Amino acid sequence: MSTPGIKIFAPATVGNVACGFDVLGLSIEGLGDELIARQVDEPGLRIVKITGAKGKLPYEVEKNTAGLAGLRLLQHLGKEQEIGIEFELRKKMPFGSGLGSSAASAVAGAMAVNELLKRPLEKRDLLPFALAGESIATGTAAHADNVAPSLLGGIILVRSSNPPDVHRLPAIPGLQVTIISPKLEIMTKEARSILSSQVPLSDFVQQSANLGAFVAAMYRQDITLLGRCLKDIIIEPQRAKLIPHFSEVQDAALEAGALGCSISGAGPAIFALSSNSLIAEAVGNAMSSTWEKYGIEHTIYQSPINLEGARKM
Amino acid sequence: MSTPGIKIFAPATVGNVACGFDVLGLSIEGLGDELIARQVDEPGLRIVKITGAKGKLPYEVEKNTAGLAGLRLLQHLGKEQEIGIEFELRKKMPFGSGLGSSAASAVAGAMAVNELLKRPLEKRDLLPFALAGESIATGTAAHADNVAPSLLGGIILVRSSNPPDVHRLPAIPGLQVTIISPKLEIMTKEARSILSSQVPLSDFVQQSANLGAFVAAMYRQDITLLGRCLKDIIIEPQRAKLIPHFSEVQDAALEAGALGCSISGAGPAIFALSSNSLIAEAVGNAMSSTWEKYGIEHTIYQSPINLEGARKM
Repeated sequence: MSTPGIKIFAPATVGNVACGFDVLGLSIEGLGDELIARQVDEPGLRIVKITGAKGKLPYEVEKNTAGLAGLRLLQHLGKEQEIGIEFELRKKMPFGSGLGSSAASAVAGAMAVNELLKRPLEKRDLLPFALAGESIATGTAAHADNVAPSLLGGIILVRSSNPPDVHRLPAIPGLQVTIISPKLEIMTKEARSILSSQVPLSDFVQQSANLGAFVAAMYRQDITLLGRCLKDIIIEPQRAKLIPHFSEVQDAALEAGALGCSISGAGPAIFALSSNSLIAEAVGNAMSSTWEKYGIEHTIYQSPINLEGARKM
Repeated sequence: MSTPGIKIFAPATVGNVACGFDVLGLSIEGLGDELIARQVDEPGLRIVKITGAKGKLPYEVEKNTAGLAGLRLLQHLGKEQEIGIEFELRKKMPFGSGLGSSAASAVAGAMAVNELLKRPLEKRDLLPFALAGESIATGTAAHADNVAPSLLGGIILVRSSNPPDVHRLPAIPGLQVTIISPKLEIMTKEARSILSSQVPLSDFVQQSANLGAFVAAMYRQDITLLGRCLKDIIIEPQRAKLIPHFSEVQDAALEAGALGCSISGAGPAIFALSSNSLIAEAVGNAMSSTWEKYGIEHTIYQSPINLEGARKM
């Protein structure tokens, strides 16, 4: 016997938002992973189908971010020997792009098990399980700056990933995200390995100050202050070299009116924030023209902040 | 001819508030500097009297933080050749203690000139002049984390000192500051010179996250979140050795119920934040007992956050 199943959508996210390396993430609309989960007779969790991944994702549950997240929740609930679940994962977003692909899958896995079991946990309490799944992709203990916004929506400040202590900031209304994603892959593990293990004291002070002011800007709905904070003087200079013509794309976005522009997650996608959708569109065109000039294939996405996060479709 | 004069009070401050090195400062009540300013016939600014400084502060205007701040404002207003002003500085707080003594004097100097001249500038616009005065004490371009709260009151986030971009956070009502100050002096220049010029990447992330959450806690009036953020894992471990039995005093404060406890400014004063005045008193007693045990002479201050800042008395 197998039930008709439920379908979960978990959105793509921008992690490392400018001044918020490992600390700030936000959720977008219209891009993300879908996961269909069915209850079956044979106990245990299995992944039966993966589409959109070009064969790059493992079916082995413990090596798959969606699988592991779902499995850890099932184990936590003590139902591993009792309940049978099949996952069908539909990757509907690029991966290795810096848009939180592994996090979206992990969130979808935890969410699917919780929904199939009639929500034994609150949404927020799924975080540790989604983080357990995400840790496969990062190769270390996962940071919550993709997982938390994919699950909860909005702009999230991660005070701590273990134990999770995450805070949803009041996103300034009208804020728009433009993302430009090249046909290139960067794996999070590698993008992390090129980072210097030390940060100059003065850069630490300046970047911290911008992060503090970013939080204040959201609470005060102060869009000009937000524009002054959206800088990354520590990580971006180290990773920009992995992305072709990064500075030129960034300059184009700022000249077109973006509040700020930086690397999405570990890259190579680049995001910009704008105060409204008209500017965001102009920003997208400006970024796109730059890469077109160099013949770099890419996709553009434009979206408001997704305030809902993962949902049952 | 000399006018009867005006009297300015500029409060003491706690800079480097835990997770906010060079970025967070707060203003206290009942402790600070007084400055009496009189208009006289002979043009130019002179310091005619200094009390409470045990001969340690210079009368030379350009070498005195109050003098230089006042002079720079007078020059900015184009009145240096026209107006005569005499300063009498009454130090009413310890200096070299980490309580923003030099900043309070600088603020008082700028404020006095502005008041004598019938407020040509708004209070907030005095910041650059007070910072110019403060730079004598720090030996480099000054950070605004003492000057801004002494001038404006409250809890201040400094996004940038040059140009000044400072933001007053909504202090959680009832918050109390306990300060314990030993009869020891540490000069800011020296306390800065012992700091490592590099910060480990993981510490940078953790401390930034706490700073972001500190700001969110103030806006949300979330006292338990505030308690989780009040940590300094970067600067405090390096400077604690300059302060006798620092860890023991800190432990005593936390055990007595403080939300957090760290070094005030560059030290050697230690501050604690508590959620109400009863706890703050117990915290003060606990810190005091610790130093008494070792025969370390000290003074205790307890105060709410000073929301007014510098004022004409």
